[in-house]
Amino acid sequence: MSEIQSVGVIGLGSMGMGAAKSCVRAGLDVYGVDLNEQALKTIKEFGAKATSSNALDFADQLDSVLVLLVNAQQVNNVLFDSGFAAALKPNTPVMISATVSAEDAKQFELKLKEHQLIMLDAPVSGGAIKAEAGEMTVMASGSTQAFSALAPILDAISAQVYNVGEAIGLGATIKIIHQLLAGVHIAAGAEAMALAARADIPLDLMYEIVTNSAGNSWMFENRMKHVVDGDYTPMSTVDVFVKDLNLVADTAKCLKFPLPLSSAALNMFVSASNTGFGKEDDSAVIKVFNGINLPGMEK
Amino acid sequence: MSEIQSVGVIGLGSMGMGAAKSCVRAGLDVYGVDLNEQALKTIKEFGAKATSSNALDFADQLDSVLVLLVNAQQVNNVLFDSGFAAALKPNTPVMISATVSAEDAKQFELKLKEHQLIMLDAPVSGGAIKAEAGEMTVMASGSTQAFSALAPILDAISAQVYNVGEAIGLGATIKIIHQLLAGVHIAAGAEAMALAARADIPLDLMYEIVTNSAGNSWMFENRMKHVVDGDYTPMSTVDVFVKDLNLVADTAKCLKFPLPLSSAALNMFVSASNTGFGKEDDSAVIKVFNGINLPGMEK
Repeated sequence: MSEIQSVGVIGLGSMGMGAAKSCVRAGLDVYGVDLNEQALKTIKEFGAKATSSNALDFADQLDSVLVLLVNAQQVNNVLFDSGFAAALKPNTPVMISATVSAEDAKQFELKLKEHQLIMLDAPVSGGAIKAEAGEMTVMASGSTQAFSALAPILDAISAQVYNVGEAIGLGATIKIIHQLLAGVHIAAGAEAMALAARADIPLDLMYEIVTNSAGNSWMFENRMKHVVDGDYTPMSTVDVFVKDLNLVADTAKCLKFPLPLSSAALNMFVSASNTGFGKEDDSAVIKVFNGINLPGMEK
Repeated sequence: MSEIQSVGVIGLGSMGMGAAKSCVRAGLDVYGVDLNEQALKTIKEFGAKATSSNALDFADQLDSVLVLLVNAQQVNNVLFDSGFAAALKPNTPVMISATVSAEDAKQFELKLKEHQLIMLDAPVSGGAIKAEAGEMTVMASGSTQAFSALAPILDAISAQVYNVGEAIGLGATIKIIHQLLAGVHIAAGAEAMALAARADIPLDLMYEIVTNSAGNSWMFENRMKHVVDGDYTPMSTVDVFVKDLNLVADTAKCLKFPLPLSSAALNMFVSASNTGFGKEDDSAVIKVFNGINLPGMEK
């Protein structure tokens, strides 16, 4: 197989936009797809070859596809229901980087195979800033052929690629277990800060002590700063963790495995969403606790 | 008040021994107290002025006292039931660094006041290595007089002292909230690694990915290494977190506050202890999960 020169980037949210820009920088012909006109304008001005709200417009010109949509339903809509996968050239490698269940990943593989397409099950992490810098972490499973065909894309967008095995679904599962930790750590940070507020301990002091001690986590340091500042402008939302911790729960169900902490954390995020905080920053999960005064929310 | 020259270090476990050595290094006259003869020998050879299994032996020679026992009961036994506090010179500052409830800390203060003694409520963190290096973190509350009298000790043993306020009990509460995070993070790490084992993901790979991603915590990185290595030699035990998460639960009860994650984590540590793992490394909490193969425990 000759080296790929063009890539369709499907989904230009914070991660997809960063990845698309990184591909432009690496000299690839980038075709950007999103429903958001502003995102299309941004990537076009950055140097994309073409953009469209409909991926079918240039399916026949793509050597590779990178899918950075939010969930499995979006992937099904854009890849399969639209006829896009059927319009791609045979043997085109398709890298699916949405956070989905292992079961969904396996279904995508079957459907892609019907069109002689090659799948890489390749969730990413690192956040918008790392995506913008071409320094995402990729935890991917798939065939040697898939890894090798997509090497130029992987080089362009990531600082670190973990090849976690051949079986499609492994990448998805590892990402879900990562999200288990991320979600529980945010909820635990919220629980600790809420208890500190209840005990009349200044939250900035509590934050400083924890971030300099063994009780720290990446998420505590990153997200509880929002609580200290009373700023719930969303970087990633409460509803994202409702989705991801439900994927954790689905995984536990498939594997028949008890997850006492993840279940408790899921309940906290679901409760926060139902109380009206679903579109706020995920640190707003702290608002499930009553009887406390938080910065910026004095009652 | 003239500057203190001598200190009685009560309790020569991993933290107390490190603190005692740091005081010797700082040129203070150190009087070491422990029931363990080997610990007394070690600190004597390191340069302690005197040692004894009975603190009463040199109570009248002490300018200050540093208490690094395990729990409130031990503090009550050694300080009060033995007559030690009554034998100290009036105005001697007593720094209590055991992890105890705010309520117990306040009781200690009352009892010390009966003998005209000054208390600093001063829990520590950082582990044995930092203690040995004189680089513990101290989160302390108490009077200006207490901080100022104990300054030479604080300088000797710690890299960072947080003055968290005047009220005795604040230091204790902050340490307990810190332990909430530490305990939940160990239990969350165990839950994630157990799920990875159930999904047949190699644990060394899972460990490497998490420690390079946003799902990381200080405790995950430190303790899940023991799981990957299958080595449960105790650094800190399961039973320590049974104790500390019970202090978290007591604090929640006093403040009438719900703690969904801490409760779940406490149940995991209690269950691990009851199954016979209480004296193993705290990472052995992962052994509450059945139906998995862990490194070093293949069935």
